[in-house]
Amino acid sequence: MNWSFAADETPASVIEAEAAVWRPLAEAARELVDLCVMSDVDDDEVRAAQADVEAAVARLRKVRRTQTLGQEHLTAGRRRPWGNPVIGLRNPIAPPLEVRSHPDGRAETDFHCGAAYEGPPGLVHGGVVALILDQVLGHSVGAAGRPGMTGTLTLVYRQGTPLGDLRVESWIDREDGIKTWAKARMIGPDGVTAEAEGVFILPRAVRERLSRRP
Amino acid sequence: MNWSFAADETPASVIEAEAAVWRPLAEAARELVDLCVMSDVDDDEVRAAQADVEAAVARLRKVRRTQTLGQEHLTAGRRRPWGNPVIGLRNPIAPPLEVRSHPDGRAETDFHCGAAYEGPPGLVHGGVVALILDQVLGHSVGAAGRPGMTGTLTLVYRQGTPLGDLRVESWIDREDGIKTWAKARMIGPDGVTAEAEGVFILPRAVRERLSRRP
Repeated sequence: MNWSFAADETPASVIEAEAAVWRPLAEAARELVDLCVMSDVDDDEVRAAQADVEAAVARLRKVRRTQTLGQEHLTAGRRRPWGNPVIGLRNPIAPPLEVRSHPDGRAETDFHCGAAYEGPPGLVHGGVVALILDQVLGHSVGAAGRPGMTGTLTLVYRQGTPLGDLRVESWIDREDGIKTWAKARMIGPDGVTAEAEGVFILPRAVRERLSRRP
Repeated sequence: MNWSFAADETPASVIEAEAAVWRPLAEAARELVDLCVMSDVDDDEVRAAQADVEAAVARLRKVRRTQTLGQEHLTAGRRRPWGNPVIGLRNPIAPPLEVRSHPDGRAETDFHCGAAYEGPPGLVHGGVVALILDQVLGHSVGAAGRPGMTGTLTLVYRQGTPLGDLRVESWIDREDGIKTWAKARMIGPDGVTAEAEGVFILPRAVRERLSRRP
């Protein structure tokens, strides 16, 4: 997903203006998602809120994209993950994570998981833990110049991950031919809650590009 | 997460009335989530939609639960996963899946993943694939009377999972003491896209209950 090296030739000011329009909508929608599971207002208030949301839906539905954001950005030679369900600024499913990555493949992120990510009572859903770890592993291999799709992903759950403020750290473990092994860990207030290892396969386009390097 | 055998003593009619209030709100919010990534209306329309969503947020924020749905249902001796991010009827993050399970531990579900679940262009995010497979594996072990939290989860990605209509099938592979191995596969229009194996650990409360059986 992150292996497209295509530059986004849209001027930064245009991208920022676009973000300034869509980001606040997604932020309001994230609050709505949280309140769908955390609100305790009476039935009439829920119905009135529903009508408000339906009004927003009616507005936004007037013009629908023919391609997803991922597809359009690919077509346009861009790399702008605004629709991504973990880091996408336009995606209310995403907390969203802001991942810092380094050329050696280290990556880290501090973020918050609220009630909408709950699996066991008070804990983050184990599958959400997997989703987030997979995303950050992808940043590691991308930052190290070894991007690719996940081939295998192994998760070991050490303890429940409490809802709240969390951190993920990720790094490259080793490389061999077209494969890259990356590892990551989820860290809560009581230490490491889960560990992940991902094997990423270099896509053909990247292999050919790398082989053309002097 | 599904190991609580506590019965929900709320009358079915009360549960259905509550669902009838919250389900339509979550459905509208799901449409909103989709449109946050798929709408292409002009800036003024986006801002007007944002105001609508903020009005809904202001209503729902008037009374906030002190416990998450998972915690409250546990306290109340209930088992009603309405807040779950994969199957929760009140959670707009959830597609939501409707999982059918059988006493032998088989489980299956047919569902739709739209643009909000996109990772690589046109494909479901690999971490979302993991999230969904983990959830369905949990239904298998629960249905087989061997519930528990995920200990380890291993995913093998065979091909990209296209956005759209998908199916997951899950079953028990073997049991040994407190451990249960369950397997699952994600199936798209071109066959199996990913396979998962989860090891689930019987929680102490369930072990004690099983040991008291004649």
